[in-house]
Amino acid sequence: MRILILGGDGYLGWPTAMRFSQQGHEVTVVDNFSRRRWHLAQSTDSLTPILPLEDRIEAWEEVSGKRVEARIGSIEDAEFLDEVVAETLPETIIHYGEQPSAPYSMRSRQAAVETQQTNVIGTLNLLFSMQSYVPDAHLIKLGTMGEYGTPNIDIEEGYIEIEHNGRKDTLPFPKLPGSLYHCSKVHDSTNIHFATRIWGLRATDLNQGVVYGIETDETALDPRLATRFDYDETFGTVLNRFCVQAVVGHPLTVYGGGGQTRGYLNIRDTLRCVELATLNPADRGEFRVFNQFTEQFTVSELADLVAEAAGRVGFDVTIESFPNPRVELEQHYYNASNQKLLDLGLEPHYLGEELVHSMLKEIDRYRERVIFRAITPKTKWNPGELEGGALSVARET
Amino acid sequence: MRILILGGDGYLGWPTAMRFSQQGHEVTVVDNFSRRRWHLAQSTDSLTPILPLEDRIEAWEEVSGKRVEARIGSIEDAEFLDEVVAETLPETIIHYGEQPSAPYSMRSRQAAVETQQTNVIGTLNLLFSMQSYVPDAHLIKLGTMGEYGTPNIDIEEGYIEIEHNGRKDTLPFPKLPGSLYHCSKVHDSTNIHFATRIWGLRATDLNQGVVYGIETDETALDPRLATRFDYDETFGTVLNRFCVQAVVGHPLTVYGGGGQTRGYLNIRDTLRCVELATLNPADRGEFRVFNQFTEQFTVSELADLVAEAAGRVGFDVTIESFPNPRVELEQHYYNASNQKLLDLGLEPHYLGEELVHSMLKEIDRYRERVIFRAITPKTKWNPGELEGGALSVARET
Repeated sequence: MRILILGGDGYLGWPTAMRFSQQGHEVTVVDNFSRRRWHLAQSTDSLTPILPLEDRIEAWEEVSGKRVEARIGSIEDAEFLDEVVAETLPETIIHYGEQPSAPYSMRSRQAAVETQQTNVIGTLNLLFSMQSYVPDAHLIKLGTMGEYGTPNIDIEEGYIEIEHNGRKDTLPFPKLPGSLYHCSKVHDSTNIHFATRIWGLRATDLNQGVVYGIETDETALDPRLATRFDYDETFGTVLNRFCVQAVVGHPLTVYGGGGQTRGYLNIRDTLRCVELATLNPADRGEFRVFNQFTEQFTVSELADLVAEAAGRVGFDVTIESFPNPRVELEQHYYNASNQKLLDLGLEPHYLGEELVHSMLKEIDRYRERVIFRAITPKTKWNPGELEGGALSVARET
Repeated sequence: MRILILGGDGYLGWPTAMRFSQQGHEVTVVDNFSRRRWHLAQSTDSLTPILPLEDRIEAWEEVSGKRVEARIGSIEDAEFLDEVVAETLPETIIHYGEQPSAPYSMRSRQAAVETQQTNVIGTLNLLFSMQSYVPDAHLIKLGTMGEYGTPNIDIEEGYIEIEHNGRKDTLPFPKLPGSLYHCSKVHDSTNIHFATRIWGLRATDLNQGVVYGIETDETALDPRLATRFDYDETFGTVLNRFCVQAVVGHPLTVYGGGGQTRGYLNIRDTLRCVELATLNPADRGEFRVFNQFTEQFTVSELADLVAEAAGRVGFDVTIESFPNPRVELEQHYYNASNQKLLDLGLEPHYLGEELVHSMLKEIDRYRERVIFRAITPKTKWNPGELEGGALSVARET
């Protein structure tokens, strides 16, 4: 199959490229290196040393005997994107090519505008390229569970049947995104859903939980194939950050009460989910939504798990509550469905001490590279006067 | 009260500016003349001759003795907008400053990107300016009933209480926008709702139906105070277009079956609704949604009404069904609530023959200015192979 991977130099994009290449697909990756540039701009870096894209690709060819193609450019550039799509004629497009950080989007007006510009206009451009050149291709777009927020009802997969005044319809599940990044993902969903309804494109939205893990079958083949691993307050997700903190003796930074519940999954399961979506494409005109996570945890549960697992192998770990820089509920109902990927055959790698131990071991190899300055949160959701109080007011509507 | 009107040179913006000025408020209008430029680009024009903004403002001062201030620039320009907001310190901001045409947004990729860029980034910039300089100000944003689409259940005003698996929550009403313009308005709603929840801003979203009419109390005072009146396929709304067609002897252009039902209101009621929202501001942290229309009609009902009323005063009118350029349901359930503005005191001007007669009379004064080329639809929603068939597929999800 011809597969185009947007954001193919990233944490998930690069392992995804190797996975499909390994299986014999024709893989082209697109990237404009924005993640590497954002790190440069804030003087941070991946914990794992990662090679330049061309060197990674050469190493992969050496190890696997298989070639991944690369096209360098921005998907906001319509001419570039048209050219790539017209020349590679992908049957599946896997779209990781977005600004993926909530704290980044809340850092400043400039960063917020950049996030919505990059994500919304990039994806809109992509929909037009698909309509023009590959209207039958299957778009797999990485979404986020954060689109839903924390409603007081069970979260379904993309749609909900609503009975109202004696009539019924199945409609998009209401969204309460928790950052301007999350808003941009809701915008994407709205635009993609439109393109499926009006142009008959086929799309799968993978509303992903928080990903953790450092290794996949392919990255483990050779140190030169490592994927990036972020632990900084901007691009690091919570479990990855906790593991780094445990290794370097920094207190685990729980934001506020720690009761925030979210869905989580192993990076290995991300790859499998994308694979399952690829093998079972959406129909023409269908906007299919899968909730992509395997387990739910509170932040405190994760901190306890890491502290205990790390203690067992000799790390001295403390947990510290930091003032929550975000505006979010710290105690709330949360119950989200994740049945559809299980139905397609997903066999989850559940989180346990063994996984934490293997992450700690890998992180320990690179402990000299940890930049302490990058660990604690600086970006506040609400720099203004109503700090902390806004959310509860708003939920009264 | 200090009132800032974004898009204050437009069809609704200019009469709104005069109305508030008449009542003694300090009014500043912001415009970048994009509507005038879009007309230039397509060689069309307002039916009514309209003066340059500075001349309108002078005429208004001559007629009323009151001064409206103008600031020329784009709200996508953060520096410009900050300056305007910081210097005028508005208590109410009325936001008409968007690309408002669904057909325009569906014309090409470039126009779609421009629409989402203008609307989403402009409004996002505005939210940041408010947060920085006037966090207590009240944002009144003109939305559209088109955000909801045509669901098979009653449409509520912004939110719906959902009972699901034994739990309840009141959540944003699900959206099924029917063009990339309508998508951009959904994006705006999502961003504004976020800013009220997280920053505690106050906002009212006026989900407006289709506006008709040519005259308000203030435009009637002097021909130099006329507001623009569009009848072309891009910027003309359906009833206004039908009236022009009736006057010039063009068949009334009903798209497809004509069973499309929407909410409508008189331009005089638009002004009154905006006034009611201004006088009764949203609370801090509140994102309040009003459905702003007074009556529901099918397109065929409107065509029949115009044909009959026009016939009665001597125009010879025919109705012709054109192939529908849009992808939309032509027969569907539609029942939307509009109670909240009535509760605040709105007394609707209902549509009747008298109103149609007065529009026909006004249009007849300018019949020599009608550009025939601009009347019939050219912009197709789905230029591709699945023409017309995409929507029904998508509704199966």
